Amino acid sequence: MLTTSQKALEIILNSTENFGTESVPFIESTGRVLKENIVADRDFPPFDRVSMDGVAIDIEAFNKGQRYFKIEGIQAAGSPQLTLKDSKNCIEAMTGAVLPKNTNAVIQYELTDTQKDVVTLKTEDVKYFKNIHKKGLDCKKGASLLLPGTLISAAEIGVLATVGKAQVIVAKQPKICIISTGDELVEVHQTPLPHQIRRSNVFTLVALLKRLDLPADTLHIKDDKTLLKQNIEEALKNHDVLLFSGAVSKGKFDFIPEVLNSLGVKKLFHRVKQKPGKPFWFGKKENKTVFAFPGNPVSTFINCLKYFCPWYFKSMGIEITNQTAILASDYEFKSPLTYFLQVKLENKNGCVYAHPLTGNGSGDLANMASADAFIELPAEETVFKKGDIFSVLNYR
Amino acid sequence: MLTTSQKALEIILNSTENFGTESVPFIESTGRVLKENIVADRDFPPFDRVSMDGVAIDIEAFNKGQRYFKIEGIQAAGSPQLTLKDSKNCIEAMTGAVLPKNTNAVIQYELTDTQKDVVTLKTEDVKYFKNIHKKGLDCKKGASLLLPGTLISAAEIGVLATVGKAQVIVAKQPKICIISTGDELVEVHQTPLPHQIRRSNVFTLVALLKRLDLPADTLHIKDDKTLLKQNIEEALKNHDVLLFSGAVSKGKFDFIPEVLNSLGVKKLFHRVKQKPGKPFWFGKKENKTVFAFPGNPVSTFINCLKYFCPWYFKSMGIEITNQTAILASDYEFKSPLTYFLQVKLENKNGCVYAHPLTGNGSGDLANMASADAFIELPAEETVFKKGDIFSVLNYR
Repeated sequence: MLTTSQKALEIILNSTENFGTESVPFIESTGRVLKENIVADRDFPPFDRVSMDGVAIDIEAFNKGQRYFKIEGIQAAGSPQLTLKDSKNCIEAMTGAVLPKNTNAVIQYELTDTQKDVVTLKTEDVKYFKNIHKKGLDCKKGASLLLPGTLISAAEIGVLATVGKAQVIVAKQPKICIISTGDELVEVHQTPLPHQIRRSNVFTLVALLKRLDLPADTLHIKDDKTLLKQNIEEALKNHDVLLFSGAVSKGKFDFIPEVLNSLGVKKLFHRVKQKPGKPFWFGKKENKTVFAFPGNPVSTFINCLKYFCPWYFKSMGIEITNQTAILASDYEFKSPLTYFLQVKLENKNGCVYAHPLTGNGSGDLANMASADAFIELPAEETVFKKGDIFSVLNYR
Repeated sequence: MLTTSQKALEIILNSTENFGTESVPFIESTGRVLKENIVADRDFPPFDRVSMDGVAIDIEAFNKGQRYFKIEGIQAAGSPQLTLKDSKNCIEAMTGAVLPKNTNAVIQYELTDTQKDVVTLKTEDVKYFKNIHKKGLDCKKGASLLLPGTLISAAEIGVLATVGKAQVIVAKQPKICIISTGDELVEVHQTPLPHQIRRSNVFTLVALLKRLDLPADTLHIKDDKTLLKQNIEEALKNHDVLLFSGAVSKGKFDFIPEVLNSLGVKKLFHRVKQKPGKPFWFGKKENKTVFAFPGNPVSTFINCLKYFCPWYFKSMGIEITNQTAILASDYEFKSPLTYFLQVKLENKNGCVYAHPLTGNGSGDLANMASADAFIELPAEETVFKKGDIFSVLNYR
């Protein structure tokens, strides 16, 4: 009994977990999901702020016809507010400075001439609050600037710094363990015998998770039921999520489903109506979640993107929006399975075109390095036309 | 004299540097630019690889009408190749295993019945090399898998692991120092006086660079010419690139251009025909590169995206391709400046729509947290129509 890809995703998104929150230094919070309301601790700008270097005047004097102004002083950014004593004078005022008291317009240097301590205005275009960023214009004290559920990027880092959030409350991340099995695997630095290959999927998964700023432990276990049981039991104790690669199909040494079952991990589905990645097994034990991906490199990769990533984001409290792309050439896929087609994306005239890159199946990792993404071709159809629009899973 | 944005970028891209190469552990190489040719160290697959769990047979026997096969043994993944002794028998063979000698097709378990040690085939569709991923089909030994100049992502990590590149040669990154000045700035954990604000731009820049997996040091210097000169001289000694935020405009305390000049950093341009970010100063001293951005939060941000990022990628040996988006509503901007408009991006039907978010100018950081990107409206035009296509700089 195969589960449809849609149903599999639905089951997974109904199996998310809340890992609580934690406080982290704001500068380490990129990629994390905000879990508090960030409000303005003061008006922004916090004072009538000069927005061009120039001279601050009282516009009343200007309106009475005055064009020469004696310089009374300099208002630097970071200095307490000065006061214009004589409304016929001016104060030089720098970008970022507080507008001096008794002034209400700043004329930028470009429109002035200065001779000794007298400034001549060369413009007739002087309005109230010219070159002044008014107090509270961007936002008022107490206004909400960032809402819980925001994914923190550089722009949010700037806001957090501005309002003084040196520590910030974010969603706690699950502890992840990525586990490989398979006696055919040797380490990356080793030279495999003719019947062996190097361990690679765990590292691909580590790199995919690093893209989400999500750290993970890794583990390799030999194809031995006793060892598997011991090590997986231990891993379940110390982690919230296990990601397996391999040993979930119908082979005589595909012990993972059996061992997980013996450890009380309840299967929620096994085998999905998709290609590649069909033998995918998914299960839960209380608040522990187990994604057991098939061992072919492309199968592991697509299943992590398609199923683990949305599970992770929903667990953190955000839904990732579906991205789409336009198929750039006709494509046929005859089996009644959801097909994840490797594509090279091209941005042209504001649209995203997906160029099929046909590899040699789920073992062909080299092809994946030539592509950028997978598009998802629905199981119900077999002929896909140039110009048709499909969901896209971008991994770059 | 304002430099056009196009000319500014041209000057910057003509001022890139080659920082050489270094060897790093492959698992730490995501985000880095590959500087060696990665070739297949053996054929891939390295042997005729079983791609479905099932039984391996000699098709000659099948073609002679035989449908029952006695099981001789099990070929596990990771075990040395077995040999089928009697061509009337079969060997069970697991996904990932070497195809047993003297066999040439694998019938998946789903199409067989097993009684004790005899397997009955339930299919007539048996062809040579059924369910066998042929040796060298993905690529031949010595074939180039990844070229120098590739930005390393999860897909490349998988390839590097597969061919045994435990260490990989990548472009060495420049040593970056991000420097804030301005006596109005206090630290993030401090409470500013009414005329002060918190230091935020350096952290925004750190976060933007972290997105490129590019580490950076930070430094704050008081608005004092002697201190500035001492500290910048020191920073120039220990770093390849300085990124400044602030003190580059026409203010009385905007000492940066003067101090850089006194230290022998040659100005290549100052002030760009753009909004925001106009007072941007760029210079070189031998192989040192100095980007001095204006201090307004949005100005710093857009200039880093528009100028520093392509400089960095070209220095690493890759050109970033121009991305475009479709303006989602009419927009007017009357000044003859390149305008970087903040937008919220929407992916719909395979296309990217840019919805203008009008903030309160270059000081309005909160607006940036609501947006995803800037689109670049050319200086030559003033009216921009819904449906027009523009370059987009996405920061999420």
